Amino acid sequence: MSISNPTVPQTFNASTPLQLISGSVLNEYQLVYETYGQLNADKSNAILVCHALSGDHHVAGIDADGKTGWWDGYIGPGKVIDTDQFFVVCSNNLGGCRGSTGPTTINPQTGKVYGADFPIITCKDWVASQNELRKHLEIDQWAALVGGSMGGMQVMQWAIDYPNRLRHAVVIAAAPKLSAQNIAFNEVARRAIMSDPEFHEGRFLEHNTVPKSGLALARMLGHLTYLSDDMMGSKFGRELREDKLQYNFDVEFQVESYLRYQGEKFATKMNFDANTYLLMTKALDYFDPAADYGHDLSKALANAKAKFLVVSFTSDWRFSPQRSHEIVKALLDNDADVSYAEITSEHGHDAFLLPNAHYEGIFANYMQRVLDDIKTAEVAA
Amino acid sequence: MSISNPTVPQTFNASTPLQLISGSVLNEYQLVYETYGQLNADKSNAILVCHALSGDHHVAGIDADGKTGWWDGYIGPGKVIDTDQFFVVCSNNLGGCRGSTGPTTINPQTGKVYGADFPIITCKDWVASQNELRKHLEIDQWAALVGGSMGGMQVMQWAIDYPNRLRHAVVIAAAPKLSAQNIAFNEVARRAIMSDPEFHEGRFLEHNTVPKSGLALARMLGHLTYLSDDMMGSKFGRELREDKLQYNFDVEFQVESYLRYQGEKFATKMNFDANTYLLMTKALDYFDPAADYGHDLSKALANAKAKFLVVSFTSDWRFSPQRSHEIVKALLDNDADVSYAEITSEHGHDAFLLPNAHYEGIFANYMQRVLDDIKTAEVAA
Repeated sequence: MSISNPTVPQTFNASTPLQLISGSVLNEYQLVYETYGQLNADKSNAILVCHALSGDHHVAGIDADGKTGWWDGYIGPGKVIDTDQFFVVCSNNLGGCRGSTGPTTINPQTGKVYGADFPIITCKDWVASQNELRKHLEIDQWAALVGGSMGGMQVMQWAIDYPNRLRHAVVIAAAPKLSAQNIAFNEVARRAIMSDPEFHEGRFLEHNTVPKSGLALARMLGHLTYLSDDMMGSKFGRELREDKLQYNFDVEFQVESYLRYQGEKFATKMNFDANTYLLMTKALDYFDPAADYGHDLSKALANAKAKFLVVSFTSDWRFSPQRSHEIVKALLDNDADVSYAEITSEHGHDAFLLPNAHYEGIFANYMQRVLDDIKTAEVAA
Repeated sequence: MSISNPTVPQTFNASTPLQLISGSVLNEYQLVYETYGQLNADKSNAILVCHALSGDHHVAGIDADGKTGWWDGYIGPGKVIDTDQFFVVCSNNLGGCRGSTGPTTINPQTGKVYGADFPIITCKDWVASQNELRKHLEIDQWAALVGGSMGGMQVMQWAIDYPNRLRHAVVIAAAPKLSAQNIAFNEVARRAIMSDPEFHEGRFLEHNTVPKSGLALARMLGHLTYLSDDMMGSKFGRELREDKLQYNFDVEFQVESYLRYQGEKFATKMNFDANTYLLMTKALDYFDPAADYGHDLSKALANAKAKFLVVSFTSDWRFSPQRSHEIVKALLDNDADVSYAEITSEHGHDAFLLPNAHYEGIFANYMQRVLDDIKTAEVAA
């Protein structure tokens, strides 16, 4: 079944307060989500896709603004995640800026936008709120949880916190926790935003402004870490913007022009909220499921019941294959059912979003397995 | 001969105008430099050390402010570059902020500090100005040129531009040109400085201010790229600043605290000039000696007469061993006399400044060879 465009976001209004890991409580919140495909009669074909730092609920199809979903290449009729077979759900994370409750939402206690008052959110909180959405959709068990990068971390957290609520976990280009270097990059990005005078300690919307320049800087830096040195070399090399060297501080090389454009676009055209960016990077920093289990990832994953597909990309230096090995090893310590693929790609961390025959083949094969499990269960029932 | 402390900077006032690659001309300029050890009778034991981005002329000994030279661990009596044997010279680069003519110098044409009006400087310009210093010191030929990182690039440029003026070239942790990723990191750092409202288009000193926050950000980012992921992992891991997680936007992890401190120190205590930082990163971007030779590094190095020692460090991802291989390969294409060492270190790019027995052994051995060449020449004369 083809996706009916434009896609229509739906809203789930949570009826129970959410106790956050930080100690704060969200008495009311909403999650915006999209769905594609048809939920089958016994509600066994539902897949939850979790998004990464700058992503949102619009993962496939074309929305009312004409925007294509961020993973549309992989989700749709006949695609890797086949909407002719699966019912696919994706929600905007709590703390986001695309419709789910976050820093740009009106705080019911003050009547003003939350801004800097929005509480710190962790991966566990996201998963807890997504579990409320699951109940609302009356889905007993997800056929699979799927996510790349920060999305993959949510998948891991689901497998640990709600082991009976998913049958398969697809963890792509992720890590079991951030390294010191990862945290350091996030911290530089946060400094860029917070030291922009337009930040106003996070109350910029009350001042009718946004820390555009800080946010653009943060995005330039983030984007840079998603790309590999080799890929940037083959895409831009040392190509000049003009015919010859200008010897001034304007943009000289194509790669500078590209990065500036990415930063500008994010801060202006995409209108991403700076507080959301801060919250998402913090949630990444805090993600460390092993911490609750004596810093032993194998123990953390001991209760997981899902079958796993773990995927990494050779040129990803943000979350390198080595980090995926840590996940695979911890799963094997528990004799878990785990498939692992290390995909050759020059596209760095971004590879998980891009076309790649080997990756698509392995991913599609695994989704067929997810489908077979559904059919076997139907026959058995 | 021990270095006489405090070290005393000297000044060379250039008497001939310097035609810069950018097209500008510096009618007058000065270079501040320090020397250690004794120039021998036939002036054959002189070594020029070239500094990196944030370095200066104070490379060894202790200056009047009590500050130890930036490579003091390697230069001094009985050390790798033995001041009992060699006469060591190090000058602050043109465009610097430690005494040589640069953005903080009074522009004789306006009576105000140069600030943003200081012309773009390239590696070729540095080498040309250092060659004037050589004449001033009446040194016919350097026994060796030595430099790490940006310093190593100057050594290469010397070997190409003034092949008869050096007998040995020691190129450490360098690259024959910056990659797109290298340029991108520089560009983000420059954006951080230039988007600080205190930057005032480079005329901040006229406004009695400095773009402290932008400069601190640039330094945090730079520093981050000098360290390896592994080293940051073993030094900081995910250690917390407080006993437990705080769940706020203050410093949470030790690595954040460390980076902020490095940034603050650079921008305030060290009082590094923001325009100098911009100029140095630009000179790095522009460095590409092969460009003048049909983009063929082997052709560029064809005229070089020096013997080479090239050194790289395994965990250096800023200028990786692969980049040194390019240099070595181009030298071998010319049947040059080249020694190459790839040093195992977890300290990333910073390794070239740090203690390491293997590195010190190879470096000291090579310097013995430089010394032997001097003695052989003396016997022959």
